[in-house]
Amino acid sequence: MSEDGFFKSATIIGLGLIGGSIARDLVAKGVRVRGYDTDRARLDSAVREGIVSDPLDVDFDGAGADVIVLAVPVDQAPGLLRRLARLARSARLVTDVGSTKTSIVAEARALGLDASFVGAHPMAGDHRSGWGASRRDLFVDALVYLSPTSAVRTPVVEVASHFWRSLGATTRIMEADEHDRHVAWTSHLPHLVSTALGLALASAGIGRDALGPGGRDTTRLAGSSPEMWTAIATDNRAAIEEALASAEREVASFRSALLSGDVGLVRERFSRAQAWFDGQSPKRSSR
Amino acid sequence: MSEDGFFKSATIIGLGLIGGSIARDLVAKGVRVRGYDTDRARLDSAVREGIVSDPLDVDFDGAGADVIVLAVPVDQAPGLLRRLARLARSARLVTDVGSTKTSIVAEARALGLDASFVGAHPMAGDHRSGWGASRRDLFVDALVYLSPTSAVRTPVVEVASHFWRSLGATTRIMEADEHDRHVAWTSHLPHLVSTALGLALASAGIGRDALGPGGRDTTRLAGSSPEMWTAIATDNRAAIEEALASAEREVASFRSALLSGDVGLVRERFSRAQAWFDGQSPKRSSR
Repeated sequence: MSEDGFFKSATIIGLGLIGGSIARDLVAKGVRVRGYDTDRARLDSAVREGIVSDPLDVDFDGAGADVIVLAVPVDQAPGLLRRLARLARSARLVTDVGSTKTSIVAEARALGLDASFVGAHPMAGDHRSGWGASRRDLFVDALVYLSPTSAVRTPVVEVASHFWRSLGATTRIMEADEHDRHVAWTSHLPHLVSTALGLALASAGIGRDALGPGGRDTTRLAGSSPEMWTAIATDNRAAIEEALASAEREVASFRSALLSGDVGLVRERFSRAQAWFDGQSPKRSSR
Repeated sequence: MSEDGFFKSATIIGLGLIGGSIARDLVAKGVRVRGYDTDRARLDSAVREGIVSDPLDVDFDGAGADVIVLAVPVDQAPGLLRRLARLARSARLVTDVGSTKTSIVAEARALGLDASFVGAHPMAGDHRSGWGASRRDLFVDALVYLSPTSAVRTPVVEVASHFWRSLGATTRIMEADEHDRHVAWTSHLPHLVSTALGLALASAGIGRDALGPGGRDTTRLAGSSPEMWTAIATDNRAAIEEALASAEREVASFRSALLSGDVGLVRERFSRAQAWFDGQSPKRSSR
């Protein structure tokens, strides 16, 4: 970053939880931040708080910067990258923060941005969204997946690793398709199951305030942004469908174990889950 | 409690997370605690740490006390109450901590303990279990359900309320059957859904360390005690089955919405869940 002469300027499109948090960290490192958000009130807040020094207009005039970050819902990112293609070609690094990587990486490849684009997915966040939820150090100790446009390791991958590590994250390079299949299980499935649980409770007329600490934790993700998650779920539909089907089977198996009255079968399920929790689960266990 | 001359002695059977935490709070208030646990090492720890001053043997000799707390899995509580019936009749209060209330309250009624028994279910805890997880102030701001043996409000209900409030909890009186149907949704369903999610991840060979903060929260309850939860799930089978069926339908609906490619339908589900999360969900919404 700036202290070692790496980046002096950044452009961040989308000042929500993730984009806003990146902006706060960069400003603290002395980076000059240009910013844009379709929500004018958000952009005004970012300027008023001294985080965005150069607010951009809808044409992105003057958006050129050492690093460009697309921090918008995954259904908007590819179109945004097309609009920024000219500027993106002259940046040291263009990266995004989306929870799916196949679409955006394919777009970057199609636009010939292999020398400057590396897709990124920080496993950090909160059920709250928006500029008001953004904060310093959101990425400290977070895992950030990096998906380059090519399997060939190019210098820009090092630039991207350096960028995310400078925010406190650890990075892991994973090809976009593999990434999307992987996070369908590790991130998207928990989100959808938590949301489904919230819907079941809503249908029974049970408010979240009736839950204990365990129930509140289990339903926390039900509060996530509908806009962001509709885009993610739609974009990664095929992989999520497989993961959801597995969760559906596990809920159904629990129900039939209870109905059968077979206490040993019920105990075996709780024991197997606890073994998994404790890290003793065999990898690729047979079903 | 002792500072206002209420209780001077307590007997706590079962020194796990809940029983151990009650013991710690009582000792801090100057109450003399007799204790028992089938796990001798646990009992020894409780004595060594100065919490249990009088360890009991398996015959419960000398177990008489102002208050007797049964802090054992729900499948063991009724039999334990039978064994303690004589002592229970002369206690000011006998209470339990189980997550289901119908069985234990029926047993107390059958034993004629109406004047001394009030069932209790503290909505507090942790996925960790055992004496090692017990701590002071576990019940501060927790909701504790109280299920008396009769709809007629007898003096012992006030004694039970006083006891639990003195540990920092708020109390709510609820008839045992209604309680069990209610917590099937508010507590047991989140536990089983979290556990089912853990099993789905285990079957895909995904370890818990691959999850982000959201996935870790959603699967936290999968680490709960198999012994305790097998007893709860079995005891409250009928009500849990209905709640599980609802969650199964919601997961299936998510999956079919994704498969249909109807983005509006997917968004509507996330929006409805968020409205529930934000407390804007209509009570008893139509399905």
